[in-house]
Amino acid sequence: MVLAVDIGGTNFSLALVSGDGKMQKRVTRSTDRTGGAGWMIANILKDSRGLAESNDVTACGISFGGPVNFEAQSIINSTHVAGWDDVMLPKIFKYELGIPAVVDNDANMGALGEFVYGAGKGFRNLVYYNIGTGIGGGIIINKEIYRGSDGNAGELGHVPILPNGPLCDCGNRGCLEALCSGTAIGRRAEEAVSSQPKRGKVIRKSRFGDITAKGVFDAARKGDRLALELVDEICVYLGMGVATSMNAFAPDGIVIGGSVCKAGTVLLRPLREQADRFLMPVHRPHLKVLLAKLGGKSGIMGAAALAMGLKT
Amino acid sequence: MVLAVDIGGTNFSLALVSGDGKMQKRVTRSTDRTGGAGWMIANILKDSRGLAESNDVTACGISFGGPVNFEAQSIINSTHVAGWDDVMLPKIFKYELGIPAVVDNDANMGALGEFVYGAGKGFRNLVYYNIGTGIGGGIIINKEIYRGSDGNAGELGHVPILPNGPLCDCGNRGCLEALCSGTAIGRRAEEAVSSQPKRGKVIRKSRFGDITAKGVFDAARKGDRLALELVDEICVYLGMGVATSMNAFAPDGIVIGGSVCKAGTVLLRPLREQADRFLMPVHRPHLKVLLAKLGGKSGIMGAAALAMGLKT
Repeated sequence: MVLAVDIGGTNFSLALVSGDGKMQKRVTRSTDRTGGAGWMIANILKDSRGLAESNDVTACGISFGGPVNFEAQSIINSTHVAGWDDVMLPKIFKYELGIPAVVDNDANMGALGEFVYGAGKGFRNLVYYNIGTGIGGGIIINKEIYRGSDGNAGELGHVPILPNGPLCDCGNRGCLEALCSGTAIGRRAEEAVSSQPKRGKVIRKSRFGDITAKGVFDAARKGDRLALELVDEICVYLGMGVATSMNAFAPDGIVIGGSVCKAGTVLLRPLREQADRFLMPVHRPHLKVLLAKLGGKSGIMGAAALAMGLKT
Repeated sequence: MVLAVDIGGTNFSLALVSGDGKMQKRVTRSTDRTGGAGWMIANILKDSRGLAESNDVTACGISFGGPVNFEAQSIINSTHVAGWDDVMLPKIFKYELGIPAVVDNDANMGALGEFVYGAGKGFRNLVYYNIGTGIGGGIIINKEIYRGSDGNAGELGHVPILPNGPLCDCGNRGCLEALCSGTAIGRRAEEAVSSQPKRGKVIRKSRFGDITAKGVFDAARKGDRLALELVDEICVYLGMGVATSMNAFAPDGIVIGGSVCKAGTVLLRPLREQADRFLMPVHRPHLKVLLAKLGGKSGIMGAAALAMGLKT
């Protein structure tokens, strides 16, 4: 039995996963952002201790929603919660709970989860997009996570699409993330609705009062013209990104995960069409764009798979 | 001693390469395009027989300027010379000369040549651009050529850059190749010169009467404003492509080969600037864009390296 931990910006989850890949138990809690990393670590450890002590847990895998120095096994930072800089989370697990632990970023963990248990089962090479607040990428080459020479390969959300496009969190302009992340879709819809107030009535605001990607896809599913125009626009950019990955990596398949993948076929169909349009013809018979099979659990299941590879 | 063969659209070369990577002898001949593949094969075999019989040649490596089915060890086709469809060139060498032979496309061979003997010596991961008539890409991952699941990974010339840009030979629009290949640079310069006849006097026509990439870079080196504007434009697109490869593969370095790399620093300096601009900041300390060290010999030296890996 391994303990898998998924740390995101708005909540964290813990799960017990048995050797056959079955999730035996799962706990999810909201994050108190004001408490910072200190509050989160204390609460993750408290829950982990409870789960680990009453079960035969031999190792722990952690998926972190932010950049990770895999070689050093430390968090680099978090853009959502303060205090994560240079935190050696696996070492704390080792000292506090007495079990070996390993950490990697959520995009790599999502890729591994889908590769071992999800849409990429049986693949040799896989490209995974984690589309949520931002866009992360995870690459599996020859059945292993590919990290590149500086440890940061697979930054597929920061591929330049529009040279003078909107500003990205990374500081550049027109990155795929700045055009197609959940946040970017919401912002783009907000602009469209305010500039065309007569349209966009079907694109509802969320309970927090803002327009989200979910609102756009829900409206698109009802046939709303403005929402469908927005989805088409997103799929042109996302199709360019997906075609680029296909041309470069020629994987067995591209898997789309993260919260935006909940949009389902209203995203998948036009995305496949655009990816096909931009793809080099030689690859077309092999183009396979799939939605993540594990949905919100890709990352935590990847963390479990990584932990199972650990010697205990 | 191995025999290395480089088959391009306008000429072919043969070389004897000793185990220490030294080129002992080299023969280059112009191609009689009207003779098609039949003429070329007969002449390559004739020269090969001469070289192989008077030396202790144990294997042959072939670099082909067009798509190759590596697994089947056959040429797929050539866009320059007729009659290459489905030709099993290594098998002919085996039957006619009695030595084992292996073939791969010129971009993979260029990547391997630079990795073993050139600018990428000591790298673990390398991305190679072969910029000439078209743009090919070759990828080295964990010290091996990466071919992907369908055998056609590394098609970096067909990454979409301008969704509605100029038509590419592959049938799509706005591919990197359609904007930045030697052919594309010549065509773009031709357009610029004819629409602005008062400028562009420094951009000379080649001896065949057309404007080539070489003419543009030569003029740029003299400070010609139109030529420098063209180079800057090319470097924006090429910089987007290079940044994409760096974000995706995070290699030890990107190597630029092919005839266009003869432009030297007048291409390299602005290219590095633009690649840096579009690169995700986390990769910036690692950005290394280099010119091919072997120049026109990258491909033939890669073919030699591939042949040396053969059991004889």
